[in-house]
Amino acid sequence: PATRTLLISCPDRRGIVAAVSQCVLEAGGNILRSDQHTTDPLGGIFFMRLEFLYANAPADDDGFARCFAPVAERFAMDWRLVRTGEPKRMALFVSRLDHCFVDLLWRRQSGELPVKIPLVVSNHPDLEPVAAQYGLPYHYLAIDKTNQPAREAQMLNLLEGEVDFIVLARYMRVLSPQFVERYAGRIINIHHSFLPAFVGASPYERACERGVKVIGATAHYVTEELDAGPIIEQDVVRVNHRDQVADLKLKGRDIERVVLARAVKWHVEDRVLIYGNRTVVFV
Amino acid sequence: PATRTLLISCPDRRGIVAAVSQCVLEAGGNILRSDQHTTDPLGGIFFMRLEFLYANAPADDDGFARCFAPVAERFAMDWRLVRTGEPKRMALFVSRLDHCFVDLLWRRQSGELPVKIPLVVSNHPDLEPVAAQYGLPYHYLAIDKTNQPAREAQMLNLLEGEVDFIVLARYMRVLSPQFVERYAGRIINIHHSFLPAFVGASPYERACERGVKVIGATAHYVTEELDAGPIIEQDVVRVNHRDQVADLKLKGRDIERVVLARAVKWHVEDRVLIYGNRTVVFV
Amino acid sequence: PATRTLLISCPDRRGIVAAVSQCVLEAGGNILRSDQHTTDPLGGIFFMRLEFLYANAPADDDGFARCFAPVAERFAMDWRLVRTGEPKRMALFVSRLDHCFVDLLWRRQSGELPVKIPLVVSNHPDLEPVAAQYGLPYHYLAIDKTNQPAREAQMLNLLEGEVDFIVLARYMRVLSPQFVERYAGRIINIHHSFLPAFVGASPYERACERGVKVIGATAHYVTEELDAGPIIEQDVVRVNHRDQVADLKLKGRDIERVVLARAVKWHVEDRVLIYGNRTVVFV
Amino acid sequence: PATRTLLISCPDRRGIVAAVSQCVLEAGGNILRSDQHTTDPLGGIFFMRLEFLYANAPADDDGFARCFAPVAERFAMDWRLVRTGEPKRMALFVSRLDHCFVDLLWRRQSGELPVKIPLVVSNHPDLEPVAAQYGLPYHYLAIDKTNQPAREAQMLNLLEGEVDFIVLARYMRVLSPQFVERYAGRIINIHHSFLPAFVGASPYERACERGVKVIGATAHYVTEELDAGPIIEQDVVRVNHRDQVADLKLKGRDIERVVLARAVKWHVEDRVLIYGNRTVVFV
Repeated sequence: PATRTLLISCPDRRGIVAAVSQCVLEAGGNILRSDQHTTDPLGGIFFMRLEFLYANAPADDDGFARCFAPVAERFAMDWRLVRTGEPKRMALFVSRLDHCFVDLLWRRQSGELPVKIPLVVSNHPDLEPVAAQYGLPYHYLAIDKTNQPAREAQMLNLLEGEVDFIVLARYMRVLSPQFVERYAGRIINIHHSFLPAFVGASPYERACERGVKVIGATAHYVTEELDAGPIIEQDVVRVNHRDQVADLKLKGRDIERVVLARAVKWHVEDRVLIYGNRTVVFV
Repeated sequence: PATRTLLISCPDRRGIVAAVSQCVLEAGGNILRSDQHTTDPLGGIFFMRLEFLYANAPADDDGFARCFAPVAERFAMDWRLVRTGEPKRMALFVSRLDHCFVDLLWRRQSGELPVKIPLVVSNHPDLEPVAAQYGLPYHYLAIDKTNQPAREAQMLNLLEGEVDFIVLARYMRVLSPQFVERYAGRIINIHHSFLPAFVGASPYERACERGVKVIGATAHYVTEELDAGPIIEQDVVRVNHRDQVADLKLKGRDIERVVLARAVKWHVEDRVLIYGNRTVVFV
Repeated sequence: PATRTLLISCPDRRGIVAAVSQCVLEAGGNILRSDQHTTDPLGGIFFMRLEFLYANAPADDDGFARCFAPVAERFAMDWRLVRTGEPKRMALFVSRLDHCFVDLLWRRQSGELPVKIPLVVSNHPDLEPVAAQYGLPYHYLAIDKTNQPAREAQMLNLLEGEVDFIVLARYMRVLSPQFVERYAGRIINIHHSFLPAFVGASPYERACERGVKVIGATAHYVTEELDAGPIIEQDVVRVNHRDQVADLKLKGRDIERVVLARAVKWHVEDRVLIYGNRTVVFV
Repeated sequence: PATRTLLISCPDRRGIVAAVSQCVLEAGGNILRSDQHTTDPLGGIFFMRLEFLYANAPADDDGFARCFAPVAERFAMDWRLVRTGEPKRMALFVSRLDHCFVDLLWRRQSGELPVKIPLVVSNHPDLEPVAAQYGLPYHYLAIDKTNQPAREAQMLNLLEGEVDFIVLARYMRVLSPQFVERYAGRIINIHHSFLPAFVGASPYERACERGVKVIGATAHYVTEELDAGPIIEQDVVRVNHRDQVADLKLKGRDIERVVLARAVKWHVEDRVLIYGNRTVVFV
């Protein structure tokens, strides 16, 4: 069935829903689901995600566009229309730990994640066999303090035109602001703590030292400031005084992989809208 | 601010959202939030909850009605329009346990629950002091096997014209089908298990005997069949082999009161739509 | 039944359990439950909590003490022996928010918390009616920047000899290091975030601004450094982009009261041992 | 380090802990951790799990046995002493779904699960490639109504002397009582509901139909009665009215694999004791 997902954000005003839904109707579409959020009842920003189906008619994206273009202009909309379920192209960045990597590959293979993976990038050779097992090109680019700019240039070259977004699946290297800016809003990282607690290195060690009773994981879009970008998803697991750092790592990785998988899935399904340093997640 | 909540259910067809949002626009309203659910992309039932604000104009419910009446007829809608936040009238039925009772009274007093409580009904005298403390009329109606029909007639009399819905806050007596039918879809019960496990009496005892590792609570609308009505909300808490029945009861009541409070709140805020034996909960 | 709880901490060495359990046996006791934790298999600190019952004999605490005194000395133990279930005396400090206060009072009344409450202290008059309703003396001591030392002296006077521990049930005033030191390891605070995130003021506002998807609460022992003391218990609840600060506060208070109640219960039942800046919690 | 795990169950009497810990001491061991549970303070059953280390001496299991044998006899103990961390031999039974299978294999490979896997048994050929990838023998034994006894005889033959326990990782075939009895207390199954809700076939379909707001998974020991054996672990995940059966299956499998992994880990680490139809789980 010919289903479309429409994403909109614009200054809130009266009449947006009426105008948009009228265009869907005229193009022969039936709204399957719509979600809407306004940041403030008066003078806020309006966000909408709408799935519709060309039910009794051939898909008429041109007809929709003819109706929608002046509406979008009138309301000063940022918007995009995508074919629902169409695979997005995802680059995976990894280092040595394989739990998030293996989990994402398994979810893709099982049909849960509609993504293509044109390439895997790593600063370590360790996970090449895993990539090989799934038939994925693995680019090992060793990085040290001296060669990061050159390496990132190589990466950007590899990625250019090939991918829609990047997932840092426990990639343990900070990307430069220039790199981040090139893929603004399109790099998802999994951090192994419930942010904003334990920003930066060694969160499990610091969680153990602080004696917390709950640990967590956070998936967020990468921005220039470390671990400070818009949060997409978080979850936690209970720990206790018996748990050493090694135990926290074991418990934590079960949360990390699930939190990252949810975030990637929602991103791929166009459910996430960035708004300042926050996200609207329509699930 | 003059805010309205509109609830709609009807057979799904193209054009519903366009027609409804057009009426909101014409009546001078701005849609603050809308939630929509269709049970099946083709030929399902359409549910919608919509909050709108008469922002720059006086509230014009008549204008809205003039536009909306023919729309509602055309799409064969069940619908209602309510003033958002307007208190509903809630009867509380209790027995001996006070945790859900006290919790609801406290939430109302704190402003969290917009309800009026015209009366409390009980088959035991125990909780009269609590009702008195909050200035609520307490009707003690002892029930045994012989007098249930007469007692229920008395209750219906007390309730007639006074309440919008009934909450069974650990009221430990099964209501007759006649009583239930009179308030169909308007009686909320809290059951102390994660239904459908442990329907009926003594769920904690049976949970302990079965050796479960998780216990739960379920808020649902009451129907003729015991503990089988549409579920509004459920939640759980972990237990272990050390927990005796008394411990399960202590842990359980913390879940019961929260689950019931959420269900009551969502009911009062017109977020729950019944659909066969299930609910759509727009939160 | 004459049940005792024995708490021990000491440098770990071989033979501790054998020596302790031998004394229980000789005094006619039967061990109902024992929990043990060693921070490090080699050269760590040993913690033990042991419940025993003088089952077939009269309680013989003197007999136990005769056996145990040399054992405690040999192993350089910190220890205490208490009558299981004997109520402890708790001072409650409150400000304006009543949810934790009401919840603790209700739990005590229901028999869940074995505590006596000799007094309530507040820097606001607001909650006096609640205290009155439960028949508790309420000491309103307004504090400002100029009079804190004098007020704290008054408080210490009121508390002297009257209480075993203090609970800050959303008491929104920082106690001086002198005050804290006087009740070291005996002041429990509830902080309305998952520490170490959002230390200090306005955690819900900051959580909203940061766009977190989970909020939490933390019960901890108060130390000189703000919100940095040993954590007893934490828990969380999911939130989303629709939640404004007011919603976070509503959701959060359900977690706050449960987390604080668990921490108080465990403290009262002698289940918590402080160890550096962490806790061992035997539950 | 030479660490041992000792598991004991016996009728509760005074002096058990003293006698056991004395033997550990005499054999040169240091108790690292002990957990104890008594089903009833008076006349119940006593369970104990104890880890000790031969710290300053060579491992002296014979010395321990000399001391412990008469103790075990005196208190009528069921007991076993195992080398902590020694791998157990696990047979995996699978059908078509791979999520639990892949997860267990990955956990073993990552070092989290100390198990050997001598063989995989399946009634379908589908997962042979996965087994091959991990270098595991895969025995495909098609079963229908006519040949189950013969097939089970083959299975028992394959297993004889080769495995310590069996994990049914979404193996969708009911084993005969004779088979179950042969491996009593040593077959772990993952059921895709929170038992006792939705015993038997199609739990996700039935959960969807019932309109539950929480789904779960249960790991339990297999007994003659279907899905009625001692529960080791359970966990749940929230669902809502938008979730169709396919969504429940996706959400559910994330819970299934984690619940099964925990249960297998605890079994392998000798943390689970069966007691009637319940379990004591020392974690």
